[in-house]
Parts: sequence; structure tokens; C-alpha cells
Amino acid sequence: MSTLDLGLPARVPSPEPAGLPDAVTIWEVGPRDGLQNEQGVVPVEVKLEFLHRLGAAGLSIVETTSFVRPEWVPQLADAAEVLAGLEERDGVRYPVLVPNARGLDRALEAGVRDIAIFAAATESFTRRNLNRGLDEQFAMFEPVVHRAVGEGIAVRGYLSMVFGDPWEGPVPVEQVVSAGRRLLEMGCAQLSLGDTIGVATPGQVESVLRAFTAAGVPVSQLAVHFHDTYGQALANTYAALSQGVTTVDSSAGGLGGCPYAKSATGNLATEDLIWMLDGLGIHHGVDLRALAATSTWLAEHLGRPSPSRVVKALT
Amino acid sequence: MSTLDLGLPARVPSPEPAGLPDAVTIWEVGPRDGLQNEQGVVPVEVKLEFLHRLGAAGLSIVETTSFVRPEWVPQLADAAEVLAGLEERDGVRYPVLVPNARGLDRALEAGVRDIAIFAAATESFTRRNLNRGLDEQFAMFEPVVHRAVGEGIAVRGYLSMVFGDPWEGPVPVEQVVSAGRRLLEMGCAQLSLGDTIGVATPGQVESVLRAFTAAGVPVSQLAVHFHDTYGQALANTYAALSQGVTTVDSSAGGLGGCPYAKSATGNLATEDLIWMLDGLGIHHGVDLRALAATSTWLAEHLGRPSPSRVVKALT
Repeated sequence: MSTLDLGLPARVPSPEPAGLPDAVTIWEVGPRDGLQNEQGVVPVEVKLEFLHRLGAAGLSIVETTSFVRPEWVPQLADAAEVLAGLEERDGVRYPVLVPNARGLDRALEAGVRDIAIFAAATESFTRRNLNRGLDEQFAMFEPVVHRAVGEGIAVRGYLSMVFGDPWEGPVPVEQVVSAGRRLLEMGCAQLSLGDTIGVATPGQVESVLRAFTAAGVPVSQLAVHFHDTYGQALANTYAALSQGVTTVDSSAGGLGGCPYAKSATGNLATEDLIWMLDGLGIHHGVDLRALAATSTWLAEHLGRPSPSRVVKALT
Repeated sequence: MSTLDLGLPARVPSPEPAGLPDAVTIWEVGPRDGLQNEQGVVPVEVKLEFLHRLGAAGLSIVETTSFVRPEWVPQLADAAEVLAGLEERDGVRYPVLVPNARGLDRALEAGVRDIAIFAAATESFTRRNLNRGLDEQFAMFEPVVHRAVGEGIAVRGYLSMVFGDPWEGPVPVEQVVSAGRRLLEMGCAQLSLGDTIGVATPGQVESVLRAFTAAGVPVSQLAVHFHDTYGQALANTYAALSQGVTTVDSSAGGLGGCPYAKSATGNLATEDLIWMLDGLGIHHGVDLRALAATSTWLAEHLGRPSPSRVVKALT
């Protein structure tokens, strides 16, 4: 009785959202966090077309690539080439992930004006990812951030493992807030709170956000970054919006994890986020159909369908 | 940097959920709404094993089949056979969908003690589904409900197209509340509010629920039924929980729509719902791993992987 397939979805008028922001900035991470976690290397020309199409669809921040060591992430070994070929669009920011001082050198050589660093809230993960302790990571990042800020570059701080760590399990909220504040205090303009392994649920999201604001961090400096490993990403985003968050990370088409792999670590799909924002009457500036068409086009290059529900339904 | 695959997810302690219920009853619709919308017919023995495993996993309500005309839904043409073979488990309810008076006859012959009827909130859908107008459907359902109630049978009223209709678009909230109240007034013990085409977003869910309670309907009589066509099902469920809803419909493994078909009409996956409930500290009584193993087992019979993110991550 409910097998309908008419192509055109019925949208609803926005009810007045209580306590929700009027507008949200989508921080598109598909070209970096998405492609970094896909199997196989996408050719530079395809990446450049992808970046072009994301900007044309109305995304105002597109995280473009990473200067992580090529032997660690071969998918992004072409960072310099991508940046050399990138035709920047007016009004669009193209931040680049910079893992350390050497990465910042390379980013500056490439003319990058917007960077992100990648820290973690847990000892186990910083040990494995950076070969440093939780506290020691800050000593490594501080000169990078200071130098970047001195060059007039905007720096975002990713804080990963905020809502759970695969080795440690639950992460104490005070530890998260303390790590996040250190990134802000050293000069990061924004903090992106990451559920790197996708385990968070909405009540926990609200608790962490409330702990940051209680510690004096303005919600305008906070972004959220959810992975859909356990299907919770959009519900968590709704919880974050209800706490006043206005920057949400997402990945076009849900790039970033094979939907049939054991560990489906895909990011929240930008299209699924947009569907919710539209329904809530929250402005975002992105053309949903142009974006879904872009994700479908890229999925053909990757040889597998997009895991985004909206992309599947619309294309 | 975020490509972790350790098998064991890190769960977090439940924060005190503000305004959320302590416990939720999951109304499992996989064997009926799920299998009805899958391609191909599942053999009776497989259905019986599925029903057995769902009860064994701790589900307390398992909607078992439907007495709809076999030529309309060949997937459920074996309703009488399934009920004849069903070994009922103590403490588990096995409701059956009954489309009309003839369906009730067949259900009573089969010894069913728990039924559901399937109404709609829009003229366009009742015309197409029942060949009757919005008002006329009640004249058809009323004697069915009266007779069932007279026999001591619990009746659930499904109200479909609550959050959008493929022909009419948005559905006025007053029209939804009016249709829902008529079902309750004629004797339905519970009303399941269905987003049949999956277009709803959380603000709209809250509006509709508030309108029902403002009209004097206790939230304890309301259930929610979301499809994940646009990826919104779990976010909508969280919104419903925040309004005090304590009965949530879902489908084991997200049964009910091929994940790669154009119209991915799958129900909310029970496993994804359970992940969220566990994180929120809301009791539900289901063994998540036993259920995910069941969904994986059934997916093998259907010849395609489960669309549930949790099932993918855990199995």
C-alpha cells in the first residue's frame, strides 16, 4: 500500500523552528575527509571537476585536500597538483588540512589561505596517530597555528574522538572541553567536534555542547562533524542545531566509507543534511539537485552508488 | 587518520535525557511492512523462522502479516499459512493488518487477537488506495473496528501520508488531527502516524505531535512510523521522543525497500533505533546483536545486504 514512486517528493512548509538557527554554514569535507577514506585514488582532473561542481552548487566552504604525508594517505598525495589546478570561485573558501609544520610549509608554498589541523581528545588516538601523548600534541600544533595566524591564515581545529574512542571507550566530557579550549586558546578560530567512529547519540551531543558553552566557549566557534557508521549522524546534527550550532561538516554523497565494508565510516551526507535544513526552514545556500547530480557523477568514477538516501531517491 | 576498524564500538554512558521517556516500545513491522515492500516472495518457513527470531531477540510486538488481497500484495498472500505455523511466544503480541471487513473475517478465522487498520490523511491517497474519499474511508473502517473491539481485539489505526502526500504535497495539520481523532473515536486504541513517503523533518514531527496533544489526544496513544527515503527517519524519531512518544515503529534491518532502487522506501531500521535508544539510556528490552544477526540472516535470503548502518557495522 505504501509502494509509491512518483519522482517528485512532497515538501512541507517549515514550521517555526524553536531554538534553531536561521542559517547554517555547511563545511563540505568530501574532497578531503571523503576521498581520503575511499578505496582507490581519484585522478586530479576528476578532483578538480568535483571541486568546481561543489562551488557551483553553492557550497561556500570546500575542504580541498590535505598535506599529510603521501605514504600515509595516497589518496591525497596529489595535494599540490590539485591546488595548482584549482580555479577558485569568488566567495568560496578552500581550506586545506595541515598535519604539522612541514605540512604548513607546503601549504604556504601552494598559496593556501585557510587551513585546518587535526587533533584528538584521547591519549590512545594521539599516540597512534601522532606518536605523541594527548598533551604533547599541543606542543606540536602550537607553533604551526601561531605561524599560520601570523601569516593571516584562518585556522580550524579538528578535535577527533570527542564522543568515543575505539581503545578507551567513553571520553570524559571535561577532557574534551579541556582539549578543545587549548586549540582555541592557541589561535584556532573554530573548533570542529568530531565523532570519528560514529558512536555518538543525540543526548551526548547536547551534553558536550552544553559543557563547552558552560566553559565560556561561544557556540559560534563550534562546528560538529558526524560519521554515519551507526546511522546516528543526522539525529546528532539535529541535536547540535537545537543547541545553536551554525556550522555543520558533511560530505557530498556521504563520501568516506564503502557502504558495504565492515566499518562503514562515511560522513554525514550533505544532501541528507540539506533535506533536513530545508524542512526546518534553515538557510544554507546550496542547490540540492545540482549537488545530488554531482555526487551521482562522482559515484560513477568511484564505481559504487552513493550511500546518501537523498541522492538515491532523487537521481 | 580516521580509518579505524576495531570491531568493538565504544559506547558512552547515557547522559540524563531531558524530557525523553524512560522506556520505549518498539513496534516491529519488518515481517509485514518490510516484506510487503521487498521484491520477491519469502517462503513461509523463512518467515516463521524470522518471526521466531524477532521474538527471541526481545521484541514484544511483531506485526506478523496482512490479510490484504493476495493479488495486491503477493508477498503476503501466505498470511493464513504463516499464522497457522506461528508458534506464539509468551509476552509477545503478533498483530495482523486487516484492510476491510473481509480481512477481519479471515483474521478472526485464523484466531488473531490483535489487528491494525490502514487509513490515510489525504483524499488523493484514499482515492487511489481504497477507491474512496477521505471521509468515506471512515464509513468502511468503523464497522470493522466496532466488530473487532466487540470481540475483545486490540485495534491499531495506521494513519498514512501524515507528513506529505505525493499528489497533494504538504498536508494541513488540522486535517491530520481530524482524521486521527476519528480513528481513535471509533475505537482504535493506538494511532500510528506514518510518513509513508519519507519526506518529514523533525520540526514538522514536533508540530504534528503538539497539535494532537493540544486537541486532547494523550501522547501515550500515539506512535510514529518513519521511512528513511530521505535519510530523516532517526532524526524524526528523536524529535518524536522529545515530545514524549513511547511507541516507535521500525523494521529489522531496515527491510522494506531496496537500497539501490530509485525509490528507497525502507522503514527506519530497528537496529539503528536501538543504537540511539541505548545511547539515550531509554529501555527497550531488545538484544541488539541477536537482532542484527537475524537481519543479516534474512538479508542472505533476500539476496542483498541490509541497509541498516548498525547491521553493516556490527556484522
